[in-house]
Amino acid sequence: MGSIKTIIFDAYGTLYDVQSVTTTLDNFYPKKGAEISKSWREKQIEYSLLRELMGNYLSFYEITKDALLYAIEKHGETVNKQQTKTLLEVYLHLKPYPEVKGVLSQLNHQQLAIFSNGSHNMLDPLVKNTGMKNYFEQVISVDEIKHFKPTIAAYDYATKKLGIRKDEILFVSSNGWDISGAKNYGFHTAWINRKQLPIEKLNLTPDSIYTDLTGIL
Amino acid sequence: MGSIKTIIFDAYGTLYDVQSVTTTLDNFYPKKGAEISKSWREKQIEYSLLRELMGNYLSFYEITKDALLYAIEKHGETVNKQQTKTLLEVYLHLKPYPEVKGVLSQLNHQQLAIFSNGSHNMLDPLVKNTGMKNYFEQVISVDEIKHFKPTIAAYDYATKKLGIRKDEILFVSSNGWDISGAKNYGFHTAWINRKQLPIEKLNLTPDSIYTDLTGIL
Repeated sequence: MGSIKTIIFDAYGTLYDVQSVTTTLDNFYPKKGAEISKSWREKQIEYSLLRELMGNYLSFYEITKDALLYAIEKHGETVNKQQTKTLLEVYLHLKPYPEVKGVLSQLNHQQLAIFSNGSHNMLDPLVKNTGMKNYFEQVISVDEIKHFKPTIAAYDYATKKLGIRKDEILFVSSNGWDISGAKNYGFHTAWINRKQLPIEKLNLTPDSIYTDLTGIL
Repeated sequence: MGSIKTIIFDAYGTLYDVQSVTTTLDNFYPKKGAEISKSWREKQIEYSLLRELMGNYLSFYEITKDALLYAIEKHGETVNKQQTKTLLEVYLHLKPYPEVKGVLSQLNHQQLAIFSNGSHNMLDPLVKNTGMKNYFEQVISVDEIKHFKPTIAAYDYATKKLGIRKDEILFVSSNGWDISGAKNYGFHTAWINRKQLPIEKLNLTPDSIYTDLTGIL
């Protein structure tokens, strides 16, 4: 892959640990934090896929709120406005995985970007709050085109915004559905298989597979 | 809803219990049947959504096989060709939920149809093997148009095939994503909430909600 000019990173689950919300959830719902967090994330992804399929786009911020309400209710709990606000604010302060900053520092000869389903009102504060703004030339959100990954339209938007060819891009994600979509579109792909899961059976095998971000160095 | 001329039923999870596969899975993988069955079903649905979004259609039969392979591998097991064949054949003999035949018998003054993401090589033997063929005027598969539910294109295909207006149709499904899609398209909807789950937070509240199929009588 000598022709790679730009590395695009997915945000949630790839650079940032979305399960960082568990601690705050545990404070509100003792011992239920982990399971609510899992439901929240699953529903968040599902709602983005469903809304895209139904032609019913809503920003990822709103979807994240809706998914939270579903998850809380599913686990037999309630949530008030203040708690909702607090939980959504945790998304602006998610922890990067331990190796992330070290790896990004060593990639300073490459053009780096984030491309996420998240909306700018989530991504921009997160990147700033975690001190990671300087690593990236661009933070691109699907909200600019209002089509979620893994549609071809979404990945193509990112390519056009960067102004280079798709075969000059390495796309990095820990999400199976995202890395499959990126491969389907035509990016070089590196799957960060943090949870040691099987390769998705979609006939779209990632070009490289690593257990964490250090693999791409 | 005095204008309802036709009732369309979803198949998997609505008329038929997809967890009937658990017994066979338990024979092959003692004590792991329930968890493999759950993963299998989740992946089956996810792959249909992802393939639709990626513009990469494959029949539900093939998707069901791929999802099985993923689920087996996820739970640290292996599956040979004969076991795969046996497990896929269980899908042709799924158990109807206990109340289903009684309810369908009492709806004999209505036109009834099935509309499913399943392909005909799955649906037709299943309906025949369970002795339910005579209840339905039509068994319609998305495979005829190669767009999965919950796209508008899929529901619209079923409407056109039935030759009536969408506001003359009651759509019945136990799947939250499916009943939301049907509402989004414009069907009257009855959600069979078998698992006592929250209403999906998609601003598409079903017109009626029942715990099993007897509610629609």
